[in-house]
Amino acid sequence: MASSPGDVLALLRAGAAATRADLARLTGLARSTVSQRVDALIAHGFVTEEADGSSTGGRPPRKLRLRTREHAVAGVDLGASHCRVLLMDVGGQTLALREDPLSIADGPQSVLGHVERTLHALLKEAGRDPSTLQSIGVGVPGPVEFSTGRPVDPPIMPGWHQYPIPEFFADRFQVRALVDNDVNVMALAEQRRAFPDTRYLLYIKVGTGIGCGIVADGRLHRGAQGSAGDIGHIRVGELDEPCRCGNSGCLEAVAGGAALARRLSDLGLAAASGSDVVRLVKSGHRDAVRMVREAGRAVGEVLAGLVNFFNPDTVVVGGALAAVHDQLLAGVREAVYRRSHPLATHVLRIEPSRTGENAAAIGAGILAVEHALSPREVDRVVAGGGY
Amino acid sequence: MASSPGDVLALLRAGAAATRADLARLTGLARSTVSQRVDALIAHGFVTEEADGSSTGGRPPRKLRLRTREHAVAGVDLGASHCRVLLMDVGGQTLALREDPLSIADGPQSVLGHVERTLHALLKEAGRDPSTLQSIGVGVPGPVEFSTGRPVDPPIMPGWHQYPIPEFFADRFQVRALVDNDVNVMALAEQRRAFPDTRYLLYIKVGTGIGCGIVADGRLHRGAQGSAGDIGHIRVGELDEPCRCGNSGCLEAVAGGAALARRLSDLGLAAASGSDVVRLVKSGHRDAVRMVREAGRAVGEVLAGLVNFFNPDTVVVGGALAAVHDQLLAGVREAVYRRSHPLATHVLRIEPSRTGENAAAIGAGILAVEHALSPREVDRVVAGGGY
Repeated sequence: MASSPGDVLALLRAGAAATRADLARLTGLARSTVSQRVDALIAHGFVTEEADGSSTGGRPPRKLRLRTREHAVAGVDLGASHCRVLLMDVGGQTLALREDPLSIADGPQSVLGHVERTLHALLKEAGRDPSTLQSIGVGVPGPVEFSTGRPVDPPIMPGWHQYPIPEFFADRFQVRALVDNDVNVMALAEQRRAFPDTRYLLYIKVGTGIGCGIVADGRLHRGAQGSAGDIGHIRVGELDEPCRCGNSGCLEAVAGGAALARRLSDLGLAAASGSDVVRLVKSGHRDAVRMVREAGRAVGEVLAGLVNFFNPDTVVVGGALAAVHDQLLAGVREAVYRRSHPLATHVLRIEPSRTGENAAAIGAGILAVEHALSPREVDRVVAGGGY
Repeated sequence: MASSPGDVLALLRAGAAATRADLARLTGLARSTVSQRVDALIAHGFVTEEADGSSTGGRPPRKLRLRTREHAVAGVDLGASHCRVLLMDVGGQTLALREDPLSIADGPQSVLGHVERTLHALLKEAGRDPSTLQSIGVGVPGPVEFSTGRPVDPPIMPGWHQYPIPEFFADRFQVRALVDNDVNVMALAEQRRAFPDTRYLLYIKVGTGIGCGIVADGRLHRGAQGSAGDIGHIRVGELDEPCRCGNSGCLEAVAGGAALARRLSDLGLAAASGSDVVRLVKSGHRDAVRMVREAGRAVGEVLAGLVNFFNPDTVVVGGALAAVHDQLLAGVREAVYRRSHPLATHVLRIEPSRTGENAAAIGAGILAVEHALSPREVDRVVAGGGY
């Protein structure tokens, strides 16, 4: 049963309704109510109505059509040392994409200025007017208060604490920007694109640091303050490795890419980052292979607890170290299956990431699309609120 | 915007609508559609329509009224050694309650037969016909596949594996029974009755075993197979205590009531159960106080990880050992605040259970009420599906 303008839109998207008569029948709404809502959607440009040529006489029924292709959103992936901007239509098709090296530590004015220029360039490249932009999704490598879109004490983002990212974009593009932790948008991309059959998915990113994105009942779980998934500082095993957070024995200090690189470097090997660790593993270096396997076990030991607690049916392992996922996943699986309750693991799959290097940009774009098309949002638009 | 019979019901419950005209105006539904749905609700007995005496001429508007008090549900709390049956109306008022000692190990036929007889006695006591019963909620001390209502390998419930509890009640009362793990219904009771201002709550039960009920975004989180919250076998600390599950170092083996009793007993004290531990702590016995405090720290260490992962704003500690919650909570808080991320703890409250010994029966009753009144269910009822 549909009742709001957003639900009317959903019926059109699903192909369940093609005319005003269809909508009245499917929703039980009065004809006058249907017309009022359809007119509002047309006025906003989400829907067009065209005569159907196939009529054989009398006044032909007019067909409603969605205009997804005319409306664009942007997905922005800000990493520690890169920036990806993706332009997609609200149907999910990529229109243009650009990646640049960029240090998040340059601060918000510099980094967001770059995003603004790139977005204008991509809109031009795709032949879209900036006014066709509906919303912007942004993934950042740190904790975010989702309701305000402001980073909160992000460890590797100096100068970004409490910076009002949505206001930056509202001033320049007159659209709403949704800002989220990068692992959250990656989890969204994996679930929507690669694992649409599950409603309970954990995405574990094992890179320099370690974080987790959570999909519960098909939606992102952000928790009470939006900091859910911060698993890098969960205590693990018996090692008392000191961590940058001030505690010791944190998962990140035991199994993060930076920690592995430091330990390999202590052994006299040339390793400064997670990428160096990956290179050493790929070349078959014994100590590197052993360390990644052990890192997998440490991740798996924490994950086993989370599997008991959360009961997902899909765990996706991504991030820089997932490039050597054979070794990493072997360790993860070993620990999870040893420590988790059989009921929690009997249909559990633990898989490498499938969405690849554009995961965060795609996920941020999906966040923006779902915002643009969500019933509540469309209600606001139709009610004249704009963005 | 309301559109289904259930939403019509919700508008009446909220007091937003009192007449068919109100409903048409608030929902945008055609008058004929409103009438069809109201008639169905009247036919099912959820709603009555009465003339309003205050009219000053012409045909008076007829007022719609909910009949919550005429419809009853049952909340059943099956513990290891007790059985509570609570009869409530769908408005949440308790009509009758009975508690009996009963061993869950007697098996399903014996235990459910007792529940059946008790329920008939309570209906009689409250002057209700069995036909007024809408649904039954049941909390059991073991894992349950919620969709089928069947226990799955429950460790302390011999004979219950895969037993079809809902069919037992469907045969005898012609209603739907919803079966859930006891900590889930306790979490529901705490959130709905004691902490309605939060949408993210964890309920930790520290009794003979240790389990966790999870409320996410205001709803119970059961996970992909319904086993979410099974935290008793998460590995903790450096102790290698063997656990009945076959692993070692499990939270339950380190901090559960049975484990504490065994360790006190090893010291020559008379302690066979969690209640004995509580008694020794209340009498100020030093070793018992120390052990409960340590148990609190172990629970807190696991909880710190879960707080980082899930980001609740409320943690409720209940179960037998919560009777000495000063000592237990001190340990829990100490470990959580030491190990969790500041963003996850800056508004976190860790509180003792407030719903008391009837928590599970009340929660099971709430589960039954929400099922009876949920829009989807009412749609099914109105569509003639019955239960």
